[in-house]
Order: sequence, then structure tokens, then C-alpha cells
Amino acid sequence: MTTLSHYLENNQTDISLPLLQQLDCQDPLATKRDAFVLPKNTVYLDGNSLGAMPKLVAERAQQVLSKQWSQDLIKSWNSHNWIDLPVTSGEKIARLVGAAPGQLICCDSTSVNLFKVLSSAMQMQPGRKVVLSLAGNFPTDLYMVQGLASLLGEHNCQLKLIDESVNDQLLEQELTDEIAVLLLTQVDFRSGRLLNMQRLTELAQAKGILVIWDLAHSAGALPIALDACNVDFAIGCGYKYLNGGPGAPAFIYAAARHHNAVSQPLSGWMGHSSPFSFDKHYQKAAGISQFLTGTPAILSMSALDAALDVFADVEMTQLREKSLALSHCFHQLVLQHNCLRPLKLITPLKPAERGSQLAYQHPDAYALCQALISHGVIADFRAPNILRLGITPLYLRYVDIWQAVTTLAELVASNEYLKPQYAVKNKVT
Amino acid sequence: MTTLSHYLENNQTDISLPLLQQLDCQDPLATKRDAFVLPKNTVYLDGNSLGAMPKLVAERAQQVLSKQWSQDLIKSWNSHNWIDLPVTSGEKIARLVGAAPGQLICCDSTSVNLFKVLSSAMQMQPGRKVVLSLAGNFPTDLYMVQGLASLLGEHNCQLKLIDESVNDQLLEQELTDEIAVLLLTQVDFRSGRLLNMQRLTELAQAKGILVIWDLAHSAGALPIALDACNVDFAIGCGYKYLNGGPGAPAFIYAAARHHNAVSQPLSGWMGHSSPFSFDKHYQKAAGISQFLTGTPAILSMSALDAALDVFADVEMTQLREKSLALSHCFHQLVLQHNCLRPLKLITPLKPAERGSQLAYQHPDAYALCQALISHGVIADFRAPNILRLGITPLYLRYVDIWQAVTTLAELVASNEYLKPQYAVKNKVT
Repeated sequence: MTTLSHYLENNQTDISLPLLQQLDCQDPLATKRDAFVLPKNTVYLDGNSLGAMPKLVAERAQQVLSKQWSQDLIKSWNSHNWIDLPVTSGEKIARLVGAAPGQLICCDSTSVNLFKVLSSAMQMQPGRKVVLSLAGNFPTDLYMVQGLASLLGEHNCQLKLIDESVNDQLLEQELTDEIAVLLLTQVDFRSGRLLNMQRLTELAQAKGILVIWDLAHSAGALPIALDACNVDFAIGCGYKYLNGGPGAPAFIYAAARHHNAVSQPLSGWMGHSSPFSFDKHYQKAAGISQFLTGTPAILSMSALDAALDVFADVEMTQLREKSLALSHCFHQLVLQHNCLRPLKLITPLKPAERGSQLAYQHPDAYALCQALISHGVIADFRAPNILRLGITPLYLRYVDIWQAVTTLAELVASNEYLKPQYAVKNKVT
Repeated sequence: MTTLSHYLENNQTDISLPLLQQLDCQDPLATKRDAFVLPKNTVYLDGNSLGAMPKLVAERAQQVLSKQWSQDLIKSWNSHNWIDLPVTSGEKIARLVGAAPGQLICCDSTSVNLFKVLSSAMQMQPGRKVVLSLAGNFPTDLYMVQGLASLLGEHNCQLKLIDESVNDQLLEQELTDEIAVLLLTQVDFRSGRLLNMQRLTELAQAKGILVIWDLAHSAGALPIALDACNVDFAIGCGYKYLNGGPGAPAFIYAAARHHNAVSQPLSGWMGHSSPFSFDKHYQKAAGISQFLTGTPAILSMSALDAALDVFADVEMTQLREKSLALSHCFHQLVLQHNCLRPLKLITPLKPAERGSQLAYQHPDAYALCQALISHGVIADFRAPNILRLGITPLYLRYVDIWQAVTTLAELVASNEYLKPQYAVKNKVT
């Protein structure tokens, strides 16, 4: 089968506005854009940092505030099933990441959830103390390992980092039987590099290593097959490609085969087998609910739950197809502008090796990013020199790609981006 | 000075509807009720489980959704100062609990926050392993200690429970120099008993014990003086008396004198001294921000932040005065109904020993509670036999107390509460 992205990569290097307009006309996901509230005259290429707001969220928030909380008050835990929301939302995500029911639940933040699964995994690996990860992994993942290590002591838990630029073969060599846990983020937050989940999981498990995948930059962005890859644990983020809102609740996946053996230390009342019996001894719930801790943040979780309904009729393979095509068009357009030659793509070109973003190194990446934002193209910057462009096929059009690259080229050609106002640093960059 | 509650207790045992109407007319907090959206024909006595919704929350949610998230998107971290929301909200709570600036921050759930301060406190107490608490403490507090103990091993961390019914003298005897941490909830979730924070903190510290207070049932309900009592650490809940919404973010207080020494293990990127430098080594932030972990749940935290503004012009002593008066009237009215004699008050009668709720034992407490709810009086039930009535002076009127007790008396006198429909158990009780 010749897919659109395959066709584009092999035959279509000259990207024109009419071609992009034609691709929009043929896009089976084109109507999805209407499911979102988007600012006018803006191309939003930062959905990998904060997803756009689905219209369903505003409707749901209205229900939760004007009916559930304010009118039905405490009764809503039963009558509006707030108590099951972590499971309900979790199952919607499970469908997107290839997890059979009963293995994925929404709760807390990605960082807190990593602490839970990492502690669980370490307890399952007596005699092994090393957590292996990449130096370029998203820092909070590394910090949480360091936090656990500081609590357990170096003799029980150590973080070993290998250079993020290693190729797969070198990474594989590090998978020795001294490693307790392999902790990897499927798509690198800087480069957008996509790791081979199937192969790395298999190689690690062959050495008795438990594998934790962080899906922050892949859940909702591309097809994932957690069960088929025999993954042990995964965590992920609700506010990027899943569009759950700023700081949306995160999620935990734990393979059903581990549910009996695990014991996670953030054992709050929501993870108890019978929370409302108010027993003074902790008895973990059966199944995935044992990973819950405190009372779920219902306002934030309701927003995420509503946002996930946008995916109800979306096939992830279709989404991926459009993501790759959009990315291809973006980079081809960059190549078509001589003035953009100083931009160095650090995202792998092969589709199988990249997620749903493009990242370019440039000495003035910060100023370029600020200039783009000022001109209605929302990109983001990652220190020290990366311009990062998130590709979110649910609400990006092919013509948006044209608009973005044209704007970028104009800012560079005119030296507009060198104006001092674009060098002013924000608190959050 | 003769306060209202003092006057009522000593002179006014015959509570009549006209008296209550008169008290409403004289109530300096009467107008605060207009700050809330409340269901019609309902007396809400469960604000100690889920606070009612302030009108400001609906306005704020509208801003956050229709402007901040959907229009300004990622820029809102700077332009709407989302990044500082944990501090901004925290300082609003600090004022209510007697904490000078820089010591209180909003984040995560009460359970997760307890894990942070408990781990911190244990690391500050080498050679001591026992966490002392009451068997009747809210279970999630006990479960989190058990979780930490399971991680650290019994030789490093042990939970010791003493009977919740002990008097202060007996509790004091348990404060030996083998104890690392004393973990107490200021107001008992079942009985409403209020512990003496000043005295217990002082006695514990005299033995080298660090003290953690859980303020879930006291923050926003009565005056608290964390700094004046020299408290070490505290945690609390945003969704009860603070009205932050279901599962609202919780908070952490850590006395400034401990900020350098502590090291908390849930060391996520928001607790880093420079989160956006994406350094691979954790370096804790100075001050209270070191207790942050993951990305804050902005939708839920914005609701809490707006809800806290209701307290902006409220003096906690005034709130306490009304709380005690409402509680006094409630119990006096119960005593005035012969049919309510089977209800046994387990809340201490002395104002200095009770929080802002009343709790009665009754063999059919569950059915009574369900019958009350069906008749527009929202109370709650705590296993095995407690009918619990939360007193929230910001939105309860004196006449509501009349309505509640009259309804209760009618349900009992008519045996209505014995009908089978009131015995049907809910998932959340």
C-alpha cells in the first residue's frame, strides 16, 4: 500500500501552496479541527507542550460546575460517578496506547506516577540496583529516580545515564543483567527521536530487566502497542497530545501480569481495596486501582475525560499518517528556503525514528522562537539552542505548515528576529 | 469580652426559630452566603467533605477556559502567571493558618504531600524510626506511613498507633525520645475533636520529635497559628472548608527553619531550582518550592485560587465565633427533641476541644443520613455508626440549623428513616 507520507517522501519534494490546499481537501481528519477552540490568525505548533482546547471541554466544565459540584454537591461522587473517573478516563487512553482494559488509570502527575511504578519495579528486582536511562531523558524522570535513590540509599538504587545520542546498537549493549529497570521516554522531548519500543523491551526483558516507558510525547501522537510489546509499566501525560488542559492528570499503565506482585509506596486511601470502610491497615485494591493515591482532582480530570472523546472515532494509524505528511511538508519547505539553511534538523528523517515534532538547532533559536510567536506562529524553544515544532494532526491543516515556514523564512530573511525585544527571557521558556 | 457563643452557652438553652432569625439578622458574615452557588431548598451540612461552590469559581473557570487556555495557550504560563499559581494560592491559605510568607505551597493531594513531608522529617531524624499517630487518624495518613515503611523497611520506619480515645495526658505520655515524628490531624474526621496544637507540639519538640499536623478538617474552619505554635510541617486539603472544588489541590507547610535541611524524595522538575534549564541533575529550589513535584493542575488550582478569595475579608476569629454558635444551637435543638435522645454526641462539648462539625452515634446512622439527604438536609455518614454534620459558617444560616434539626426530628418521630430505601448502600458513603 502506498501511503500518503510514503508518496510524498518519494515523489513530492516541491511543496507548493496549491498542493497543500489540495491535501487539506482530501484530509479525512480535516473536520476534527472544528472540535477545537483555536485563536484566530495563529498557527499553533506547541501542542506537544500544551494541547489546544477541545470544545467538549467547555461543555463539560459547564456541567461539572453548574450542575455536578454546585447543585448535586457531595452526591456527585455517586450520581455523576466521580469516583470512577480515574478508570473511565484511563480506559479511553488505554484504547489509544494498545492496552487491554483494566491496566491503565488516570491520576496525579507524570512525575508522581513515575515514582509509583519505579518503586514497584525496584521492589520486584531484589539484588539489582541500577536504573538505566538516557542522559537526554526529560529531566523530571531523572530527578524522580534521584529522589528514590536518595531515599533508598546508593546501595539500593542508582541511576546510570548513557548519552542520548548513542545509536540503538550501543544502547542495546548497555542492557546487561546488572540493570534492574530500563526507563525510557518513547519520543525524545528535544529531538523528537522515536525509540523502538518492541525491540528495546524485548532485549531488556531477555536480561531480566523491567521496562518503564514514558509516553509523554507519544500518547495521542502515534500508534502505541503496550500489550503487544509486552511492556511492564508505562506513564504518560494528559496535557500534550491528549489535550486534557494545563497540568491535566497523568496516567499509569501496569501490565496485568504484575498486579499481584507489585506494591507501590504512595498507598493512599483511593488505592485501598475498600476506601470507605476506613480501615486503619492498608490493603491494596486488586488491579490497576492500587496505583491511586489521594482524591482525584475532578475538575481537571473531567476536562481530560471530555477531551479524550475527541479521539473516539480517530484511528491512530490515520493520525500518524497525517502527522508524518505534515512533518514531511514542513521540512521540505524549510529546505526550499535558502535563508533557512542555518537551521539544522536534529529530528531523524526516517518515519520509523521520529515522533510528531520537528526540532532544529540554531544559534539564535530563542530569538527565532520569540519572533515567530510575535508573528502568530506558536513554536517553542528548548535550551540551549533548539527550535521545536509540535505537529498535532487533529487541529493542524496543511496550509498552516505553509504559513509557519513562510513566516519563519521572512523573519530570517529580513533579520527581524535579531531585534532586541526577541531576546527578552520569559520565566517559562 | 462576652462572645456570642459564650453568651449562648451560658444563657440560652431554649433555642427558638425567632431567636435564630434574630441571630441571622445580626450575623456579620450573613452576606457571605451570596458568594456561593447553593441548591434551592437544601441545607448543606457536608461542607467538611466537599465545600460549596463560590461564584468566583465559575467566573474564573470561564476566564481560564475561554481566554487563558483556548486563546493564549502555552503563553499563559507566563502571561497569566500559571507558573506561580502554587505560590499564589499557597499564600492565600498561609494567611488563614497563621503562616508567614514563603512557607506554604499548593500542590498534589494531601496523601502525596504527606509522603513528602514525612520522608523529609524521617531523614532529619537519624537513629529514630517510629512515627506516632492515633489509630483514629484519617486512614490515608496511616496508609502513607505504611507505604513509606514498606519502602524503607521496618528497621527504618515504623508506625505506632495509640487509641484515639486517649485523653491528652495519656497521649503526652507516649511522647518519648524514641519517636521520630508525631503525626496528628488537628480535628478528628469522625468525632470532630480538636487537639491542642500548641501544647502537643511543644511537648513533642521537647523530646526531639518533629511534628506534622494534618489540617484537612481545620484549615478554613477555625483560627490556626502554625508559626506561633512552632509547627514543623503541616499538610491540608483544598476541597473541604476551603471550597476549592472536588479533589482540589492540597497544600504543604514547612517551617522556614527547615528549608535548608530537608530533602524530599518526590523531586520532580517543578521543585528544581531552575526547571527550564533542563539540567540532568536535581538541584532543589530554595524555599518552599522544593516541595513541588510535577506540573500543577491549572484548572483545579485556578478554581481553588478563586475560591480562596472568598476569605479575603474574613477574620478567622469571626468565622470561629459563628461556627461555635451554629454548633451550639444545633446540639441544643437536638436536646430539645425527646425523640432524638438515642443520638449520642461524640463531639466534645467544650469549644476549645471541638472543630467545626458535630458527630452523633446512632445504630441506624446510615439510614438516618440517607433519609435526611432525601429530605433536603445533606449530612454524611462515617462507618460504622456516625452521623456527621459539617458546620460551614460562610454559607450556613442559623435558620438552616432549625430546618436541619426539625427535619431530623420528624424523620425519627415518624420512623420514616426505617423505610428500606434508606438502607441501600452507595459506592461512596
